[in-house]
Formats: sequence, structure tokens, C-alpha cells
Amino acid sequence: MAQTTPNHTQTVSGWAAHDSSGKVTPYTFKRRENGVNDVTIEILYCGICHTDLHHARNDWGITMYPVVPGHEIIGVITKVGSNAKGFNEGDRVGVGCLAATCLNCEFCNTGQENYCEQLQFTYNGIFWDGSITYGGYSNMLVADYRYVVHIPANLAMDAAAPLLCAGITVFSPLKDHNLVDSPGKRIGVVGLGGLGHMAVKFGKAFGHHVTVISTSPSKETEAKQRLGADDFVLSTNPKQMQAARRTLDFILDTVSGNHALLPILEMLKVTGTLFIVGAPDKPLELPSFPLIFGKRSVKGGIIGGIRETQEMLDVCGKHNITCDIELIQPDQINEAMDRLSRNDVRYRFVIDIAGNSNTAN
Amino acid sequence: MAQTTPNHTQTVSGWAAHDSSGKVTPYTFKRRENGVNDVTIEILYCGICHTDLHHARNDWGITMYPVVPGHEIIGVITKVGSNAKGFNEGDRVGVGCLAATCLNCEFCNTGQENYCEQLQFTYNGIFWDGSITYGGYSNMLVADYRYVVHIPANLAMDAAAPLLCAGITVFSPLKDHNLVDSPGKRIGVVGLGGLGHMAVKFGKAFGHHVTVISTSPSKETEAKQRLGADDFVLSTNPKQMQAARRTLDFILDTVSGNHALLPILEMLKVTGTLFIVGAPDKPLELPSFPLIFGKRSVKGGIIGGIRETQEMLDVCGKHNITCDIELIQPDQINEAMDRLSRNDVRYRFVIDIAGNSNTAN
Repeated sequence: MAQTTPNHTQTVSGWAAHDSSGKVTPYTFKRRENGVNDVTIEILYCGICHTDLHHARNDWGITMYPVVPGHEIIGVITKVGSNAKGFNEGDRVGVGCLAATCLNCEFCNTGQENYCEQLQFTYNGIFWDGSITYGGYSNMLVADYRYVVHIPANLAMDAAAPLLCAGITVFSPLKDHNLVDSPGKRIGVVGLGGLGHMAVKFGKAFGHHVTVISTSPSKETEAKQRLGADDFVLSTNPKQMQAARRTLDFILDTVSGNHALLPILEMLKVTGTLFIVGAPDKPLELPSFPLIFGKRSVKGGIIGGIRETQEMLDVCGKHNITCDIELIQPDQINEAMDRLSRNDVRYRFVIDIAGNSNTAN
Repeated sequence: MAQTTPNHTQTVSGWAAHDSSGKVTPYTFKRRENGVNDVTIEILYCGICHTDLHHARNDWGITMYPVVPGHEIIGVITKVGSNAKGFNEGDRVGVGCLAATCLNCEFCNTGQENYCEQLQFTYNGIFWDGSITYGGYSNMLVADYRYVVHIPANLAMDAAAPLLCAGITVFSPLKDHNLVDSPGKRIGVVGLGGLGHMAVKFGKAFGHHVTVISTSPSKETEAKQRLGADDFVLSTNPKQMQAARRTLDFILDTVSGNHALLPILEMLKVTGTLFIVGAPDKPLELPSFPLIFGKRSVKGGIIGGIRETQEMLDVCGKHNITCDIELIQPDQINEAMDRLSRNDVRYRFVIDIAGNSNTAN
């Protein structure tokens, strides 16, 4: 039995990995009673993020088994604590990566909870009551209302689920660099997966010229025809990379494998920024010359704050942006994770937790 | 004979390296006549920058021999072209790294000539007339007035010479990050050489808390007592590095050898910036996690524009800031370069070109 506390009395059905094989099987566990600051959510859909795979397989050596992954959670509220202002039974809501923060530091006080030093994640974290957190591969979640967001009415709930992590991860750097309301810039997106395809959608919705940079020639057609990218550069083709030198204002690098930064940095204009969200395990090679001679920057960031996540969802509602997903049933999680490890997905798997895919949209 | 053009009629005595031994010997060459946009400068002092050493020895494979190094040039104007507004005979002036730019691009038009794609350097460059540029290890220079700056009257000319490269190289990032007029920040300086000691002086003059980060325990005393640094962290001591985690707003990294970025990045607060001016030859290892989890940036930049260089000199005049130098005679250049290659200098060699060290100050 996993670590719980006396108030963990609610029985939940979910899916957990139990060892570094990463194999996910049905798992019954307990969640806390709905407290005054909590809302209880009947989970309908949960996206499968690459981070889930890393945790299921203990790639980072930090997994507390059994682990119930999932931080792209969408569902309907079934219970509301007395302090949970702004939430009502029946609300369509989402929960992303955050389960708890200190609520009192400079970051928590300014809507940047995602940089709080006391941050605990939606799964594989330690909640305030000492219990290990379990994620969205389960049929019910109790969440503190301060980490819950509303899903705009016009968005399909299954296709909106990945916005809670993939969406905010690429929205936040665009927002930070004033690229949401200032059209006409030239943006590059490295890698066309769960994060990358959302970056292309946002970039186009916000009025920018979007260039996809990829190692796969086969992605040119889908980048342009399916996602509306303006340009495609094959990063293994030095001529194409050279021709694109000094053309981009901002590049979002979503690749989590090792890759060369030098030719990517040289695609940036002077003072341009390469923003890394892909989190490669091993250090990347950083050449100093393209930084120095081009006054360029390499930055990083992780998801976004809650206020910003709500803003992202509202912007998605306004522009009718959701993710391109492959909906699966819970008994297909292992197969999906296997395909995900080979980047064989267009572009995000979403689990139909409640088995009602025909009625939810 | 080096490449010149018909109007190169003025004979100049200087010092040049002739091959990759880097050995510098007396060398007589020609400079152009003073054109309408030129000023002629009797060179009094010239600093020895690490870049001079790289060029003398052809470390970067781009040296056009014979090379007359030197881009920290200070002297007195002896002739003024008819277009060279703002300059008069007898003016104390300086010339840094720039000999020519296109004068017409977005960078030239906004005082950022240092990022012009047509930039030609003060030595080992190709001037507009097709001639190879020769630097400040010489007794006279003809310079386009648009790349010439005034030296404030209260600054010693020998100790001011390195401001033209070392000074502006560390001033520009401080200015860019709003650290010239906003005191009270916590700044780190990695490496205590020609660039680093100027960064400490600027940091203290601008009212910041300055931490020197170095691999040499012996530098603690000089950092604190001689230069006024507030704190010293030995980068080879994991305990000290750990204790300094998330304490700095901005770090200037002046080290040109290979070094680990991970522990340095972790010293930055959330959203902090590591600014690289040291130009290591080989790529540095860039771990993505401290960027991502701390929303941190790694940036780079090269010197500064001419307007900004003048501003830097005026700020130095106001705060009475010059470099700590070791003044040498021209016949000591090889010995000085040898010591510089071992980082054995406090903190910059300056050549007493005119041999009048007793009267210049």
C-alpha cells in the first residue's frame, strides 16, 4: 500500500507502473476526502506526456513506485470545498502539473507557482499532508482549487487535455517574449511532436511566420499542409540551414534528444532567442561564438503558472485551438507508451478514462 | 610587403608577428593618407588583449601575416579630416576593435555597429579601400572618426587604454541588463583577469553586491581587498557553490577556457542571466535542467557600439574608473604575451608605445 494519511478514505481506480519495466496495470488506491480548498473531479480524459514515460520507467531515478502518471487531466467537478471559489459542480475543468506549492513566496505571489521551491507535482510528488501524489491515469482526482483551471465551452475535452502541459509549455515562452499579441515575427519550431505541433498552431494563430526545423523530411508535408507552417528546414541539410542563417527572431526547441545547437543558433537574428523546453538528459554542446557574435540567448522554462494556464486556455477558446490527438482506451496505455518512445504519434495520445469518447464532444 | 593601396604613403613604425610562433618584432609599414573622414592619432599607449595573442599565434586559423595587433589604443590627434566633426588636434582619443562597418544597416543605424555583418576589425581586417588593417602596436594610426572616442580628462591615458576593449566588453552587458543605474543587485563575476577585474570595478561603482567566482584560492584576498568584491566563491569547492545556490541576479562569465556551466547556472536566481564574454574555443557543456527549472538564460555579446563605448568612458570619468595595469616597453611585448598566456598579469599589460610613461599622466 502506498503512503497515505488517515483522511485518505476514497477508493480510486487507476493505472500504475510498478517497476522500471514501465508496464502500466490497473491499480486501486486511496485519495483524500474533499477538503475545504479542494474540488473533486471525475476524470474524463488524460494526455500521455513524455514525462509520464520517463517516470514510469524511472529514467531519472526519482520514481516512487507504484506511480500513477498523468498531468494533462480534464474532467467534470463533482464536489466543491467551501473555500473553492469560482468552481461549481458540473464545471469542465483541467489540472496540469502542479499539485501544491508554498503559496507564500515571490513566485506563488506573482502567478509563477511553477518556479516555487516547494513545488510538488501532480504525480510522484509529496502533498502537504505527506501523501504521495497520484496523477490522472485514474477515474477521480481531488485537487486544491488553486491549481485547477476552467476549460472553455467550445473546446473538445479530449483534444484540450494536452493543453494542460504541452500547451502551456510552449505558450508561456511565447507570452514571455511578447509573441501572443504582436504578430509578424519570424518563429522557428525545432521538432514536430506533442510540444512542437502546438507551437506551430500558436505561432500561426498569433500571426507569425512559422518555420519548422526537423530531421525528418517526411514532416515537411504535414508541417505545411496539416499545421499551416510557412516554411520547413531540414536540419540535416547544411545548405538549407545555411540559407536560413540570421532569419528568425525566436526559436522554440522542443527536442528532448541530444542535438546540435550551433546551426540552430545561427538561424537566429542578432539578439534572437533560442528557448529550450525539451529537457535533454545529457548536456547539450553550447558553442560560444554564435552567442557572442550575435548577442543571442539560450533560455529555458518549465510549463507556466496557473493564471497563465487559464489565460492560455482562454486564448485557445478564442482561437479554437486544441491538440491533434489519438484517443486510446486505458488498456492501450502500454502500447501507446511504446509508440510514444518511438515518436510514433500524431501528436499526443489521450486516454479515454471514462470510456465515453462518443459522447464527450 | 603587406597589401596596401596607392594612397598608403605614410610610413609607420610598429611591431608585428610574422608566423604562428607569435613572436613580435619591429616592423615598418604604410598607412593611408588622412582622408576627409579620418583623424590621425599619435599612439601613446596600447593594451595587450588576449585576442592579440590568439591572432599573433594564429590560434583561430584566420591570421593574415604580418599582423600588427592592438585594439586598446589611446593617443593624441595630430590631424583632422574636414568631415571629422567633434574632433580637434590635441584631443585625447581612443580606438577600440572597430575599423569599419557598413554604416547603413539596422545595427549601424542604431549604435550597434559591433553587430554589423560588414564589420572589419582594427587589425587583421580588410578596410574599405581593400587594405589589411594594422592595429595599435605602432606609433601612429589613421582612423575613421566614426570609430573614435574621447577620453575623459581625469583618466590616466595608460590605465584607460584597456577600457577600449576589456572595459566595453563587460560594460555593455551590464548596461543591457539595466545594471548601470539600478543599484542593489547581486552580481557574480567568473574569472578575475583583464575582463573580470573591470566587471568587479563596474559592479561596485554601480552599487551592486559583487561575488567573484574563481578556481584560484589566492584570488580571494585580491578580489576583496584590492578590488572591493563583497564575496568570493571557490568554484572547485562544491560546498561553497551549493551554499551560493539561487543567490545571484546576473553573472558575467569572463573565462575563455573550458569550464562547467552547471554549478554556475545554479547560482542564479530564477530568471537570472549568465552572460558569456570569454569565448571558449570549444563548445561548453550546457545542461538543460538549470535553464528549464530556473527559467534562466545564457547569453553572449561582443564589445559594444561606439556610442555605448563613449558612454562607458564618460561613466568611467564620472566614477574615476580605470584598469589596473602593468606598463611595459615595446621590447617587452613577447615576454608580456608569454606571461599573459599563463594569466600572469594584474590585470592588463599596456605598451608604452611612445616611451613617455613618466609624463603622460
